[in-house]
Amino acid sequence: MADTPVLDFQALDEMVRDAPFHRWLGVTLKALSAQGVEILLPWREEFVSDPKVRYTHGGILAALIDLAGDYAIAAKLGRGVPTIDMRIDYHRTALPGPLVARANVIKIGSTLATAEAQVFDNRDKLIASGRGAYLTQSR
Amino acid sequence: MADTPVLDFQALDEMVRDAPFHRWLGVTLKALSAQGVEILLPWREEFVSDPKVRYTHGGILAALIDLAGDYAIAAKLGRGVPTIDMRIDYHRTALPGPLVARANVIKIGSTLATAEAQVFDNRDKLIASGRGAYLTQSR
Amino acid sequence: MADTPVLDFQALDEMVRDAPFHRWLGVTLKALSAQGVEILLPWREEFVSDPKVRYTHGGILAALIDLAGDYAIAAKLGRGVPTIDMRIDYHRTALPGPLVARANVIKIGSTLATAEAQVFDNRDKLIASGRGAYLTQSR
Amino acid sequence: MADTPVLDFQALDEMVRDAPFHRWLGVTLKALSAQGVEILLPWREEFVSDPKVRYTHGGILAALIDLAGDYAIAAKLGRGVPTIDMRIDYHRTALPGPLVARANVIKIGSTLATAEAQVFDNRDKLIASGRGAYLTQSR
Repeated sequence: MADTPVLDFQALDEMVRDAPFHRWLGVTLKALSAQGVEILLPWREEFVSDPKVRYTHGGILAALIDLAGDYAIAAKLGRGVPTIDMRIDYHRTALPGPLVARANVIKIGSTLATAEAQVFDNRDKLIASGRGAYLTQSR
Repeated sequence: MADTPVLDFQALDEMVRDAPFHRWLGVTLKALSAQGVEILLPWREEFVSDPKVRYTHGGILAALIDLAGDYAIAAKLGRGVPTIDMRIDYHRTALPGPLVARANVIKIGSTLATAEAQVFDNRDKLIASGRGAYLTQSR
Repeated sequence: MADTPVLDFQALDEMVRDAPFHRWLGVTLKALSAQGVEILLPWREEFVSDPKVRYTHGGILAALIDLAGDYAIAAKLGRGVPTIDMRIDYHRTALPGPLVARANVIKIGSTLATAEAQVFDNRDKLIASGRGAYLTQSR
Repeated sequence: MADTPVLDFQALDEMVRDAPFHRWLGVTLKALSAQGVEILLPWREEFVSDPKVRYTHGGILAALIDLAGDYAIAAKLGRGVPTIDMRIDYHRTALPGPLVARANVIKIGSTLATAEAQVFDNRDKLIASGRGAYLTQSR
């Protein structure tokens, strides 16, 4: 899956920032290459799940994996695609601080695509990972 | 899985409202019975994914399914449990308006549990569904 | 999802028995209703995973859940559909003996469908459960 | 996850061949390294799903992904571990011929582990992929 992306960095970054939920999350494009995309998620106090331990809520990590996989496909197709379903695995608790999601396409076809993503903290520890199925056909 | 819950409505509702991310979402407990829990998610403009069609972001639905499954287990255990992994299926786009998640326990053991949840809009249309694996052993 | 099936019992049972892998498994249709299907899996010594404890291999349970979900959809569409992806949860070890899978459709559309299934042993204990996404559009 | 395996090739291959279901499948260990394992699945006529197109049943691919992930963990732990749940994505139909599954550990801990696997046909085309959660704690 090392085809040249059809979107350049600025066009994809604008797409990432376009959704109101993404603006609330604060996500931006960090890197774009033939291998995939990197999405940066800065810290927000509202991400906290447990007010004592202050780790990031699993729903935030799920949203990050979903959108990172979506933009790995969008970089190749030139448009966002609806998520059919996804799986998220939680590996470590994420303490307050920025996170990076790295996503790549596993398979892209004219009807369906599959993408995967990993979320790392700022010490490069794997926090969560997952994959989603996406509908690529234009309807 | 029709055992009597060990938490009453007020104690579980306080647990639901305790997490900063849950307070931002605005989720509250709507119903608690031997069969499971219902969680109410009011609408927020920041939930929007596509600014034109204004449907709810899949990450919000994933967070709702994760937390509803978690509280279906917490109602029986008396405490929240970490999510190991989860799967979300997206069935319809959710237009602006409140959503309800109904969750129940599939299997609960001393080490692991599985719970499932369905998300409905205010016309009772199925928007998304999913299931998660949770770690029940106390560490 | 309580529409009348478009296939009768005999037509669906013939479809279930048609695949060489299904004939090796020995699966047959046990029940068909507006709510879903039941598939019977008799015991085979080759299903064993651990030669000492003699429980059934997870791959056999995964195959059973996949095919039961597929036939829950086929009963409504009149034809089998390809599986896009699936999730299987393992709840208990299945000791030697027949198993029954009960499957129903969660959502069926003109492009995609989702079905779920539960596997029970002959004491009606839940052994495994899961769900799959299927491609319903004719290609 | 590049730790030295604790099992050598012969010990792991014997473990792979030990299960009656694995003997029926015909799976053997093809490669073992610090990065993971490769499992070879030869062709059997009973694997066929559709008697006309003769592609391999999804249940066979699911079993192969489950067991490959399990042995990627066993190579590091010295023993097999129970699967908690798994996800399988189907990318292409597998026509008659041998298949290879390549599996690696995503995260291994003292309670839980996650592994992933990809299945390739003999032209090195990606047929299916997936991931599973496994219980590593000794009970």
